Amino acid sequence: MKPITSRDNPLYKEIKLLATSSQARRKARRTLLDGIHLCDVYLRQVGHPVLAIVNDAASAHPEVAALVAECERRRVQAISLPDSLYKAISQVENGIGILFVVDTPEPSDPGALAESAVLLDNLQDPGNMGSILRSAAAAGVRHVLCGPGTVFAWSPKVLRAGMGAHFLLNIVEGIDLETVVSAARVPVLATSSHAAKTVYDVDLSRPVAWMFGHEGQGVSENLLRKASVTVGIPHIGKIESLNVAASVAVCLFEQVRQTMASPDGKT
Amino acid sequence: MKPITSRDNPLYKEIKLLATSSQARRKARRTLLDGIHLCDVYLRQVGHPVLAIVNDAASAHPEVAALVAECERRRVQAISLPDSLYKAISQVENGIGILFVVDTPEPSDPGALAESAVLLDNLQDPGNMGSILRSAAAAGVRHVLCGPGTVFAWSPKVLRAGMGAHFLLNIVEGIDLETVVSAARVPVLATSSHAAKTVYDVDLSRPVAWMFGHEGQGVSENLLRKASVTVGIPHIGKIESLNVAASVAVCLFEQVRQTMASPDGKT
Repeated sequence: MKPITSRDNPLYKEIKLLATSSQARRKARRTLLDGIHLCDVYLRQVGHPVLAIVNDAASAHPEVAALVAECERRRVQAISLPDSLYKAISQVENGIGILFVVDTPEPSDPGALAESAVLLDNLQDPGNMGSILRSAAAAGVRHVLCGPGTVFAWSPKVLRAGMGAHFLLNIVEGIDLETVVSAARVPVLATSSHAAKTVYDVDLSRPVAWMFGHEGQGVSENLLRKASVTVGIPHIGKIESLNVAASVAVCLFEQVRQTMASPDGKT
Repeated sequence: MKPITSRDNPLYKEIKLLATSSQARRKARRTLLDGIHLCDVYLRQVGHPVLAIVNDAASAHPEVAALVAECERRRVQAISLPDSLYKAISQVENGIGILFVVDTPEPSDPGALAESAVLLDNLQDPGNMGSILRSAAAAGVRHVLCGPGTVFAWSPKVLRAGMGAHFLLNIVEGIDLETVVSAARVPVLATSSHAAKTVYDVDLSRPVAWMFGHEGQGVSENLLRKASVTVGIPHIGKIESLNVAASVAVCLFEQVRQTMASPDGKT
């Protein structure tokens, strides 16, 4: 491991930019994985990071040492930073300090949708995005298509909340959802609190595309109109709506339930 | 409306303490509702606030003016603050500035549980707590019982995420969950990623108590052992677990589905 001790080191400055600027991450097509869990998932399931960064204070930690050893075995560059420099690039408080710089995977064009997918229209909250990606990955839904106003999926905050789900998914950002909906070969279900049908009334044992919207306003009117069906989650208590990530979980796992119950179901 | 312009005003200092100290909120048994939505829900569904606080810059906003007029009709004191003083007590960025100081409702002793309930063991994240309360309220589950390590439910952050759910629930904090589980007259289901049964395999058309745990570690071992059944949510994708608030939504709405499908079901 090469120690870096100066804030003016060009490599450190580059990392700090990645850590703090979403624009820089988009431009470089790189991002930061923060913490042991994500780094471990990446090495096991995805491939080689570009760079490993360790907090001096954590370098003796056995799990960190094992990750660094694996990086060195793969000839991945590893650097160590003093606590003060490390803290300026990590968002994990009281974590065990290891970060990877990784290339953001290149999404594949989903074409005319023929598989299950989640479409996100103007979703705002990083925690919700992370939770939704986790639910999609767990439910076996591979495509997550994000309209232009939706929060950036590859920020360290979303990556942390996603707990590794990012690497199991095809996440396409800045895609025109109206075009996707028009071209889809599977039914497009939009969730709405004003829907006549419930999610339990529709056949989910076949692939569908789910559309979810902004935390406050829901799916925009023009997309709602283009959906094949609007569905709601029935409420027993007098409350307007669920949290959007909670709604996604209910919908996707109702699909899992129906698929598992169906002799030839397939998401 | 009475204007307050000095940081040294005793009432302002009291409000600021409530806004910034969880200990002060617990001690005073009061909290702050931040924003139009929560204040409106409170006036319509709960009762009289202790005090209404308006940002000068928002006082002409029609929805704010209507809320203030309703407060004045009910003889609730209303004060106005300049933007700089208001910002120091509000967590809503770019919101329309109105806050209520309200008494935290006194929870009722759930006794030996005979209704559906959610038990939270050491849950940490305010956003997750808010989402869980919303799901519980929507699913018609009235009791939410929180063990001593669980995040405080009446912080402004959790209240915002709860979107009014708090006022539909009996939220009991700092309760010994082992005692609750031992005394329960309904089955206690603990969610675990190592469970043999799935949530779809158990009869949820009758009341049950659900137990959920810490975001990283799940339900603690001693509570898991005391549960009647441990259940899991089946995953199709290769991911370890769902976000805990997503898990809660899946479980509670599977209960709603089964209850609705059962001729005499009741949560």
